[in-house]
Amino acid sequence: MGDPTQLTELSVHAFLERLGSSDPVPGGGSASALAAAMGAALVAMVAELTIGRPAYAQHEETVRKLRFDAIERRAELLDLAQQDADAYDLVVRARHMPKDSEAERAARNAAVGTATIAATRAPLRAAVVAGEVLDLAERIAPIGNRNAVSDAGVAALLAAAGLRGAVLNVRINLPYLPADEPLGDSAPGELDRLEAKATRGAAAAMAAVADRLEATN
Amino acid sequence: MGDPTQLTELSVHAFLERLGSSDPVPGGGSASALAAAMGAALVAMVAELTIGRPAYAQHEETVRKLRFDAIERRAELLDLAQQDADAYDLVVRARHMPKDSEAERAARNAAVGTATIAATRAPLRAAVVAGEVLDLAERIAPIGNRNAVSDAGVAALLAAAGLRGAVLNVRINLPYLPADEPLGDSAPGELDRLEAKATRGAAAAMAAVADRLEATN
Repeated sequence: MGDPTQLTELSVHAFLERLGSSDPVPGGGSASALAAAMGAALVAMVAELTIGRPAYAQHEETVRKLRFDAIERRAELLDLAQQDADAYDLVVRARHMPKDSEAERAARNAAVGTATIAATRAPLRAAVVAGEVLDLAERIAPIGNRNAVSDAGVAALLAAAGLRGAVLNVRINLPYLPADEPLGDSAPGELDRLEAKATRGAAAAMAAVADRLEATN
Repeated sequence: MGDPTQLTELSVHAFLERLGSSDPVPGGGSASALAAAMGAALVAMVAELTIGRPAYAQHEETVRKLRFDAIERRAELLDLAQQDADAYDLVVRARHMPKDSEAERAARNAAVGTATIAATRAPLRAAVVAGEVLDLAERIAPIGNRNAVSDAGVAALLAAAGLRGAVLNVRINLPYLPADEPLGDSAPGELDRLEAKATRGAAAAMAAVADRLEATN
């Protein structure tokens, strides 16, 4: 286990080295949240390149709101990338607790259960927020600056991939949740709904991007 | 236009702020390459968590090779994220050149054309390398450490999204290539082939991940 406390302060280069190391933290949960955060940043960029341009004046108010929402989601996803790493670090630590006696096993099971709840909630929230980023990308694709329409498309692709990746990270944790944890019952339906949203949202955004690419080619 | 020379030395946090700014550089091309680089890093991590474990000894040699290949792809994609930013920065600079006289317009057109070739080659190469990362993810998903199978899945998702995002960045540039540039003829077929690969590879990797998640639930 490394020191996951300053993940987003690492350079991009150092973060990728850490991600690829034998340390399981950070892993796919943080990478998924960061992919969706890049999607949110791209929505904000497309909005920035649209606001104040006379050709897009009719959408000014909508695009300002999209920018605001994208910046908020970017910050939350960055935070969730860190939370995912912190939570999974606790799971790994709990699994390393001794299990020689009945008392030790009980303490270990309780610690693993508590840590797993946090390690499940972080990617579940990341999947929800990634879905919101996908909505923003889908909305800006048809009305944002045409020169940046590929950026709106990349935003949708990264949000959808981040959503699906976060869902995988929830799924792998579900069997290790404490039996009395309500998430165990509520999560599966929520995950199916989120995955369906990723499919629908990405297809809609990409169709809008393709329309605008063709219109000018 | 900002200073794109030290993109991967920025902190993750600062990179995301720069990505979301009104500066068109870095944009979706760099973000796509970085998403695929995260995928490559995750393949390397899954390999690290598999190598030397008795339960996976039968795949040791294969997994060592996958790790080596993943680390190479991660480095190249990081480099391509920078190349994409540098190349697009030159396109933006060329578009700002004066176009008041016939001579100025000719010089500007030539500069835009040359810069567009570089700005097309970088994402085209990124799409090819992202496709290679997808192959690696597909190969490690069924044989890597089962505890990290969701990471193999995220690797595939990010590689596929990076591939598709890079393809979009090639497509948006195609109409601006000089008429005599061979890429204009060869790229469309290549892009279709790469997108088909993203669809097939991501589906295959996710099926392998789902199989292994179900086998232990």
